[in-house]
Amino acid sequence: MDLNMVQAARLLLDAQDILLLAHRSPDGDTLGSCFALYYALQGLGKRVRVECADRFPKKYDYFLQDASFPAFEPRFIAAVDVADRKLLGEKDACYPVINLCIDHHPTNTGYAAARLLDPTQAATAQLCFSLLREMQLPITPRIADCLFTGITTDTGGFRFSNVTAQTHRTAAELISLGADAAGINTRMFETKSRSRLEAERLVMETLEYHFDGRCALIHISQEIRARSGAAEEDLEGVAGLPRQIEGVWLGITLNERPDGYKISMRSGALINASEICAQFGGGGHKRAAGCMVEGGFAAVRAQLLAAAAPFIEAAQEPS
Amino acid sequence: MDLNMVQAARLLLDAQDILLLAHRSPDGDTLGSCFALYYALQGLGKRVRVECADRFPKKYDYFLQDASFPAFEPRFIAAVDVADRKLLGEKDACYPVINLCIDHHPTNTGYAAARLLDPTQAATAQLCFSLLREMQLPITPRIADCLFTGITTDTGGFRFSNVTAQTHRTAAELISLGADAAGINTRMFETKSRSRLEAERLVMETLEYHFDGRCALIHISQEIRARSGAAEEDLEGVAGLPRQIEGVWLGITLNERPDGYKISMRSGALINASEICAQFGGGGHKRAAGCMVEGGFAAVRAQLLAAAAPFIEAAQEPS
Repeated sequence: MDLNMVQAARLLLDAQDILLLAHRSPDGDTLGSCFALYYALQGLGKRVRVECADRFPKKYDYFLQDASFPAFEPRFIAAVDVADRKLLGEKDACYPVINLCIDHHPTNTGYAAARLLDPTQAATAQLCFSLLREMQLPITPRIADCLFTGITTDTGGFRFSNVTAQTHRTAAELISLGADAAGINTRMFETKSRSRLEAERLVMETLEYHFDGRCALIHISQEIRARSGAAEEDLEGVAGLPRQIEGVWLGITLNERPDGYKISMRSGALINASEICAQFGGGGHKRAAGCMVEGGFAAVRAQLLAAAAPFIEAAQEPS
Repeated sequence: MDLNMVQAARLLLDAQDILLLAHRSPDGDTLGSCFALYYALQGLGKRVRVECADRFPKKYDYFLQDASFPAFEPRFIAAVDVADRKLLGEKDACYPVINLCIDHHPTNTGYAAARLLDPTQAATAQLCFSLLREMQLPITPRIADCLFTGITTDTGGFRFSNVTAQTHRTAAELISLGADAAGINTRMFETKSRSRLEAERLVMETLEYHFDGRCALIHISQEIRARSGAAEEDLEGVAGLPRQIEGVWLGITLNERPDGYKISMRSGALINASEICAQFGGGGHKRAAGCMVEGGFAAVRAQLLAAAAPFIEAAQEPS
């Protein structure tokens, strides 16, 4: 059942012993949204806890500063920024019933009993901001930090096409409420570990062009990870690199996994990456999508290029 | 003489045959501000022209779309985003008297007959936005594009510490007025030429650490420029790379010139890069400053490190 803001606010206000679920490989939006809700609902005296199949990357440590997760049997479970219950990872099996899903992904599969979904929002954190306003809960500087983190990370630091006037107005409000915008942006975007730097250098050596330079592809192999010492979280954003090259409409990143490849696609306005990834059981946004493909590098690459070909050809026509 | 917004607006409204001067090596803020004023003042039927010692980088071409510069003997000359008249480059000698300077650099030398200076503003474009409002001139989508470009480039896409709630509110207003935020951001930040990519790779090979990793230094040699085929404008933002490395407080870029080195410094909160550059006759902002140093690479590097040493040592104390 799709809820509006008022209904979702009512549901959360009535809930007790709340478990908030972030998606696996957690990013700034899922964690920022979860922790904003955590601090706000905890402020009402409720028992609340955040769970995620994967550990929280170090750069989000500051969310945890005042967090303590009580042990309790959840009576209300909300998945936040989780488009598909598969993205709960190991948590999927633990919680067969999800009471509420708060999300902005257009590909949301509607797995929850109730859903607050607004695909026009740049970030789930933007939805959570409206939700806290609707619930008339105080937005402390810590909560403002959480929400700002969600918005800035899901918009690539206010750079992506999902940014609207409203996004900037919300950012202005969050800064007025005490969000440490510069500190968060530095932490999220302007800090690279030495191993990230080395990984980036090695990955860029794998760069290859296809379809007359319209498609660029990079390969993050296990070997590169081992040689650079880069952890998964060090590699955040690397998938954005091929798309940035002049003339490239579609950037594809093959991230080696034990059983195949985790694929990230980034595209320009002409190509719907989400539709290409959907052919492999994945999804996401038009310009940023992902999927998993089993097999060796050459086979996976061939499949991906074959799937991308008609999109690139179709995109070529109007120009 | 320092003017307030009302006085500066009056001066511009009364002016005729206006020449707007951008600084050499023009960036998004000097050009965005100049062209916003150009379109707005031209809309009043005035004769206006923009000049710059260096040619406009290709990525700002869209400013020029509806621009035609009439020939006239200037009767009013305004320098926009120009901290020091030396930064006018070859234009310095042509125009001994500057009637008005509109700027946000705290190091502004006060060379103009009148000055509208506000160092609390993230960009000169933000000042120009207020000025156009004060003059009650319409802000067309084209003017909004120019102003948005100035603000987004001078804040590193809303990432730097100079961003305030007001910066985001202005961005929201400009988007509402028709600024193509996503298109501008893509053009400014998300597009790298293949030669830029190659230059970046070569430059990162020159990376060296000093002072226990607190300072990182890179060298953009003529050879790297030649090998990569990168033009000056392709290299914009490269100076930001060393500062981004974890643990680095001061990033120094040595950009080889025929007669020495153009130095860019970027620093974290602990170090005032502008004070270091001032020792070499340069200046800028606390966290982003520059200067010129004559000599060979080894000598220039030694001088810079010697000048930086006390700042890095002093910064180490509080921690």
